[in-house]
Amino acid sequence: LAVDLNCDLGESYGTWRLGDDAAMLSLVSSANVACGFHAGDPTVIRQTTATAAAEGVTIGAHVGYPDLAGFGRRFMDMSPESLADAVLYQIAALEGFARAAGRRVAYVKPHGALYNAVVHHVGQARAVVAATRTFDPSLKILGLPGSAVLAAAREEGLEVVTEAFVDRAYTPEGTLVSRSEPGSVLTDVEHVARRAARMVTHREVEAIDGSIISIHADSLCIHGDSPRALEMARAVRAALSDAGAEIRAFTR
Amino acid sequence: LAVDLNCDLGESYGTWRLGDDAAMLSLVSSANVACGFHAGDPTVIRQTTATAAAEGVTIGAHVGYPDLAGFGRRFMDMSPESLADAVLYQIAALEGFARAAGRRVAYVKPHGALYNAVVHHVGQARAVVAATRTFDPSLKILGLPGSAVLAAAREEGLEVVTEAFVDRAYTPEGTLVSRSEPGSVLTDVEHVARRAARMVTHREVEAIDGSIISIHADSLCIHGDSPRALEMARAVRAALSDAGAEIRAFTR
Amino acid sequence: LAVDLNCDLGESYGTWRLGDDAAMLSLVSSANVACGFHAGDPTVIRQTTATAAAEGVTIGAHVGYPDLAGFGRRFMDMSPESLADAVLYQIAALEGFARAAGRRVAYVKPHGALYNAVVHHVGQARAVVAATRTFDPSLKILGLPGSAVLAAAREEGLEVVTEAFVDRAYTPEGTLVSRSEPGSVLTDVEHVARRAARMVTHREVEAIDGSIISIHADSLCIHGDSPRALEMARAVRAALSDAGAEIRAFTR
Amino acid sequence: LAVDLNCDLGESYGTWRLGDDAAMLSLVSSANVACGFHAGDPTVIRQTTATAAAEGVTIGAHVGYPDLAGFGRRFMDMSPESLADAVLYQIAALEGFARAAGRRVAYVKPHGALYNAVVHHVGQARAVVAATRTFDPSLKILGLPGSAVLAAAREEGLEVVTEAFVDRAYTPEGTLVSRSEPGSVLTDVEHVARRAARMVTHREVEAIDGSIISIHADSLCIHGDSPRALEMARAVRAALSDAGAEIRAFTR
Repeated sequence: LAVDLNCDLGESYGTWRLGDDAAMLSLVSSANVACGFHAGDPTVIRQTTATAAAEGVTIGAHVGYPDLAGFGRRFMDMSPESLADAVLYQIAALEGFARAAGRRVAYVKPHGALYNAVVHHVGQARAVVAATRTFDPSLKILGLPGSAVLAAAREEGLEVVTEAFVDRAYTPEGTLVSRSEPGSVLTDVEHVARRAARMVTHREVEAIDGSIISIHADSLCIHGDSPRALEMARAVRAALSDAGAEIRAFTR
Repeated sequence: LAVDLNCDLGESYGTWRLGDDAAMLSLVSSANVACGFHAGDPTVIRQTTATAAAEGVTIGAHVGYPDLAGFGRRFMDMSPESLADAVLYQIAALEGFARAAGRRVAYVKPHGALYNAVVHHVGQARAVVAATRTFDPSLKILGLPGSAVLAAAREEGLEVVTEAFVDRAYTPEGTLVSRSEPGSVLTDVEHVARRAARMVTHREVEAIDGSIISIHADSLCIHGDSPRALEMARAVRAALSDAGAEIRAFTR
Repeated sequence: LAVDLNCDLGESYGTWRLGDDAAMLSLVSSANVACGFHAGDPTVIRQTTATAAAEGVTIGAHVGYPDLAGFGRRFMDMSPESLADAVLYQIAALEGFARAAGRRVAYVKPHGALYNAVVHHVGQARAVVAATRTFDPSLKILGLPGSAVLAAAREEGLEVVTEAFVDRAYTPEGTLVSRSEPGSVLTDVEHVARRAARMVTHREVEAIDGSIISIHADSLCIHGDSPRALEMARAVRAALSDAGAEIRAFTR
Repeated sequence: LAVDLNCDLGESYGTWRLGDDAAMLSLVSSANVACGFHAGDPTVIRQTTATAAAEGVTIGAHVGYPDLAGFGRRFMDMSPESLADAVLYQIAALEGFARAAGRRVAYVKPHGALYNAVVHHVGQARAVVAATRTFDPSLKILGLPGSAVLAAAREEGLEVVTEAFVDRAYTPEGTLVSRSEPGSVLTDVEHVARRAARMVTHREVEAIDGSIISIHADSLCIHGDSPRALEMARAVRAALSDAGAEIRAFTR
């Protein structure tokens, strides 16, 4: 029994710090590293990839819209061609630092508004996949089960990795409850940890209406920038360990 | 008898066009491709590398300061560490598109104010070299004969490529006459063409005071954004051909 | 009989030139000046406002999304609050240069994708109006007849200015034919000029299906960046003059 | 006996937070507000000016180089003309938000590397002054005693405000000890507070070598982004109060 733990990292920019990357990299197995378009700068990328390499954490490209001011959290109606170019650029830039640290980029995960867009937006979903495939067809795509981007990845012969969110509420249909709804984000650390373990051991989760739904995730996403992120990550690790689940990067 | 012809390319950005890249790529043997920091965007980079690949033109990373508003022409007092990270990022991003076009980045040439800075600024010169070496020690550095960046490259075991400017006036000491001086930029196409041929066949050039100085350049730099750039490039090619000099990328 | 002629200006950025602003400013009565978010930089803004002032051309704030790479032509899902702040920032920055040239900003016109968004997007439309009103309730809003932004402006007590496009095809319903449709952009200079005169003298235009529709526009929009922009502007002026229509800024 | 307390504020950007602006604005009398070039964005500027207005804190334009990635802390060799345009743009943008909050921008203070540059760089110093004067000749310039920018301001008829740094060591010549030197930044809160009071009551300070030098400052600069910034600000206020010095903005 094994599961991957992924977390958004390298989201500082210039003088501005976000999250405790060093601590988080000692807890997760996969790092979604910002590539400089929505967050991250060359120095932050170097530091993050170097620490990830030292900790044995798998490096993924967290690609986003070119929107530093909005942290990539605002949908941008980019043409598929323009988006594909932007995604390839980001993966390639990150790969340079991964190689400098003796590693390689192993997967691609869309960030923020792009993550949400490629659940349904077929044109942008295919653009992300096309860019990834052009760069390296052995790269995996990490995304939401049932999303357009994972469907497109499968069509193009790329391996996909599905993820679940340990601290987000689910609808009875298995989709995420919108952040604008009450109760969408869970903050009780122990509750989240038990929930995470159940996701792995029983492949199920309690939806927001109390119903039990099945869930199949290769990776669990831990948020790194919440006030209690480290505490939650440690609790999830402990609960998984207690349940007999090993934390192991999907790429090994 | 052979010489390389290099030119700055891929300097458009978004809706803004600069130079006639397609035409220029049919005339030169090496393309200094802007990497998105002082000019160029992911789509422009893809188009430029694809055309360069189709034309058999060698691809170099034209790395610059992160200053789009100033086109990389204003000195920035970046720390060597920060500059090295920025240079590695740019080379890596370009490499992604070069590989997508079936090629590799072959050399690194600093752009604009960075080009001028690394003639004397040892810290920034070493940063450019360190980043290049970290990325790929088989990359060459293209720069001004006698510059700090070429000295640093030799110290670090990188191959260097020297260049001369066909349309710039030289001092009797063999340095470039500053652009702020009258007569610093030559515009007579036939004169420039003859001068270029002489640089290759006799390894000499007439300085601004009429004295003859020796010059050894592996590559001749043609400017791509002047009004008569294409005309000048064609005249230089013809003059070199008449003089029995082959135009050949230095990297082959 | 009088009509305003407005044109997008000040769309250069750094080293990149777009359009012939000086020539165009001798032909139009209102200048939609880019404010640095989708195009324009402080130096371009200063030059454009100074020339507009010297030519007696009314200055408007051409406000756009913060998307230089996309020239403001890609919808961005900005929150109304964030958009209002961005619009106020742009108007205020432009006002600084207008005052330095002895003038004032007289109106606000959304640019590109924002222009299209505020035809229907009530939240963003209200944000543009709210920012304008906060800055100066005597500012006018220039937009498409029937658009949400003009409705919001009227609700808030701002004066509105309607515009028609001399070189764009209209549907029988009076909306613009999408640029992706064939025949959406008219290029025959003489035809466009006659059409412009008819818009003013008869308040009607021939739609793409040949039907005649009525049109009421306080201002005619001339595009400044097409290859034949100057020629078209001169022809439109001549046709208006022949028809006895004076070209006069709406703000006087 | 009165003195102004100024502090850098509004230095957050997008998702990234820096400093505790609300708390600091309850302690100082003048706010140096970042204008979006080195830090700050339209929403941050609105919030900062609104809070400053509510607290009765005077608003100043903290103008910087266009270098978000470097937080304006790297010298940029901008031409005086280009710098003047950038400074005017920043003051004007801030003025829009100050007016929306019922206030006006009262002074201009260069930030970071620009602050250091205009101590000696006459061309850039004059550019800052020229832009300020063009915008509004009643604006004051806040800077280092003896700096080129204050000299230029006096020549142009602008009022100047001199400042001292409560937590920085001084040389026997009255200049600041470089941050790269040991002991350049003072961190003992009580010591700094006593020092601040002495600057105001006795117009003197103990230099790094133990000698006593005279100092005349209209304003004391408190740093807002250090870990103990709030504590230091409170201690300085208390010490000034104990010494009978009123904290009062210089602009009243």
